[in-house]
Amino acid sequence: MKGNLIISNVRIVTPVGREALKGAAMSDLLTISDGCIIITEGIISYAGSMEDRPMTRPDEHYDEIDAKGCVALPGFVDSHTHLVFGGFRPDEFGWRLQGDSYMSIMERGGGIQSTVNATRVESMETLKQKAQWFIDRMSEMGVTTVEAKSGYGLDTATEIKMLDVIGELASEPEQRLNVVATFLGAHAVPREYAGRTEEYVDLMVREMLPAAKGKARFCDVFCERNVFEIGESRRLLKAASDMGFLLKLHADEIVSLGGAELSAELGAVSADHLLHVSEKGIKDMADAGVVATLLPLTAFALKEEYAPARRFIDSGVAVALATDLNPGSCFSGSIPLTIALACLYMGMTVEETITALTLNGAAAVGMADRIGSLEAGKQGDVVLLGSDNYNVLPYYVGMNCVKATIHNGVVVSVNP
Amino acid sequence: MKGNLIISNVRIVTPVGREALKGAAMSDLLTISDGCIIITEGIISYAGSMEDRPMTRPDEHYDEIDAKGCVALPGFVDSHTHLVFGGFRPDEFGWRLQGDSYMSIMERGGGIQSTVNATRVESMETLKQKAQWFIDRMSEMGVTTVEAKSGYGLDTATEIKMLDVIGELASEPEQRLNVVATFLGAHAVPREYAGRTEEYVDLMVREMLPAAKGKARFCDVFCERNVFEIGESRRLLKAASDMGFLLKLHADEIVSLGGAELSAELGAVSADHLLHVSEKGIKDMADAGVVATLLPLTAFALKEEYAPARRFIDSGVAVALATDLNPGSCFSGSIPLTIALACLYMGMTVEETITALTLNGAAAVGMADRIGSLEAGKQGDVVLLGSDNYNVLPYYVGMNCVKATIHNGVVVSVNP
Repeated sequence: MKGNLIISNVRIVTPVGREALKGAAMSDLLTISDGCIIITEGIISYAGSMEDRPMTRPDEHYDEIDAKGCVALPGFVDSHTHLVFGGFRPDEFGWRLQGDSYMSIMERGGGIQSTVNATRVESMETLKQKAQWFIDRMSEMGVTTVEAKSGYGLDTATEIKMLDVIGELASEPEQRLNVVATFLGAHAVPREYAGRTEEYVDLMVREMLPAAKGKARFCDVFCERNVFEIGESRRLLKAASDMGFLLKLHADEIVSLGGAELSAELGAVSADHLLHVSEKGIKDMADAGVVATLLPLTAFALKEEYAPARRFIDSGVAVALATDLNPGSCFSGSIPLTIALACLYMGMTVEETITALTLNGAAAVGMADRIGSLEAGKQGDVVLLGSDNYNVLPYYVGMNCVKATIHNGVVVSVNP
Repeated sequence: MKGNLIISNVRIVTPVGREALKGAAMSDLLTISDGCIIITEGIISYAGSMEDRPMTRPDEHYDEIDAKGCVALPGFVDSHTHLVFGGFRPDEFGWRLQGDSYMSIMERGGGIQSTVNATRVESMETLKQKAQWFIDRMSEMGVTTVEAKSGYGLDTATEIKMLDVIGELASEPEQRLNVVATFLGAHAVPREYAGRTEEYVDLMVREMLPAAKGKARFCDVFCERNVFEIGESRRLLKAASDMGFLLKLHADEIVSLGGAELSAELGAVSADHLLHVSEKGIKDMADAGVVATLLPLTAFALKEEYAPARRFIDSGVAVALATDLNPGSCFSGSIPLTIALACLYMGMTVEETITALTLNGAAAVGMADRIGSLEAGKQGDVVLLGSDNYNVLPYYVGMNCVKATIHNGVVVSVNP
């Protein structure tokens, strides 16, 4: 689906550029009060003032939206999700409320392993339907690009099944958003390899990565004490990099292990979570230009401290925000709540939050050259807010203030 | 709108009774795994097992829903909102992020006064449309009864205009929920009466309360230091009680002033907020049977400590939960986020949270004899969850897991 669309009389608010905005630059939003966006065959051909807008070719049909009273933002990028999964785990929520830690739930056979068991037996069709439900909700909240990870297979067949589901979602002709695939075979050490982590890394390097090649853009790893230690993570990611995968890490979520430092050493695109990042890790990420993807919904749901967003930004790191939607620690893809948490509990300004969810999210999926801002040449992905004041984003605490979502120049979601 | 409806094969989960459940009793939910609810002319005529369900009269038409795989709960009651208001205040959100307190924003002429100015000039039609937008969103989240306060007029004409708007919303033939009106002329001391609070109380007693009689079920007061002190609150509420109003208080929200104790002294139906309640206040409320209505969204948005839900429950008080939707301190009517905060950050169990949002909310609006549980004789207000496990309520962190909302036996909202 690629449309011709003119959005007129709109207040354009957007970061600018084709790479992540770092540190203080995250606040630099371009505002055009009386703006116009023209999308031609799915690509933005003009984003500027109403006054200077070009004529469109009379032989080409354009749909038109008069968006007076609305803010137009770039479509949101949710750059870290576990969108595809078997089963559900509502009861585990109760265990956690009683004080069980993520690691202890995992150790007693709950957690990831229970989703792995369900994912191995569920059909592609069922997995796809469940993911599509979330995609539809995400689209209503303004998301036009979502990253989706494998990682609930932990065997070659199921990991590839998950990537194939993600691929089918991505190529649905009427799909409402871009889907970016990440291979996360290293989400946990499967039961079958308990105590033999190095052998499981061997399996991934030898069998899974070659099979995932062409199906996933990124290779990711859950780099954490007693899961994949620094050395194991390095070996996997180096092999993946050699095969042409871009790199991501789940880093320093539970303890300060050095995942941030490793992300910089390997030139990863992003390191994610980072609740327990070290000062050196922040500095290394700033120097190497690694995007820090922060996931406040997970911290909220696990009652953890939030990642140190201000320290990242004040140290010159590019921060992205994402939901971490997954069936265990964070069964939520709520963009409004992500925004509320960033502004209220992480000390981010609204402007920084917008950049984190758009251009920096785009950079976190390696697509800042194509999406993440409202500029000629980029994909026609636009969010219209039901107000001309973008402060409504945190103001509607946990509630959706998106009026319409536009993907490739086509209106894909409209809210009352 | 009153419908005939049969909901079959559903898991019924409900508190039981015609008054608030206090303390430990809040956990007593009745569960019927293979249940059936029959609603006849808007009233529940049967709620029990499929096996024992009665025949309906063959000459009466009933719509039917096969709700296999769903939980049925009583419709949610949002027993504390400021649903009707002029203007919006998104920019004030930024002031608060920079550290301004609620009281200091009010003192510099922002806060309530700015909404008062807007409400005085806005037309009834505009006020109604804005409120209806929220009603529609609330209905999607399972709310079947909402309390709505005046309090942005602070002069007789506008207070009555607000109550008339609430009355029109309540009597819309196709309305999706019950609307209960509360007179809150004592929301703030209007500028015109600065320094003359007692005279403003006189005005309310002499002019506003008689005009509000018949239009509002409750009289409420913002009982707080430098707003309406204990003595002023007592005088107003006693006069209101004498005229037949039921009583509510905004109590002990900002400082520990003794609002809880006053609510018990006067036999109020509920005291609300209660972040800074004293031990004696809790005990007095328990003894007097005052419902404690807790508003976690406001604490979340203001970054306050949450009200001591556990201390209330463990002391034998009946706790209700509500959203406090208002254009200033909490621009949100999110039931999912209310539930998440209650379970994650206030130590309430899922069962207690369900009771707080249903039967105890009903008690907080003085309607526990008619709504708040799934029992024969009560109004046919039902929420269907998209799961047979009610733990999905907090599990879908901040996201809506309501599949359908039924009001008076009519399906009023359906979610994908």
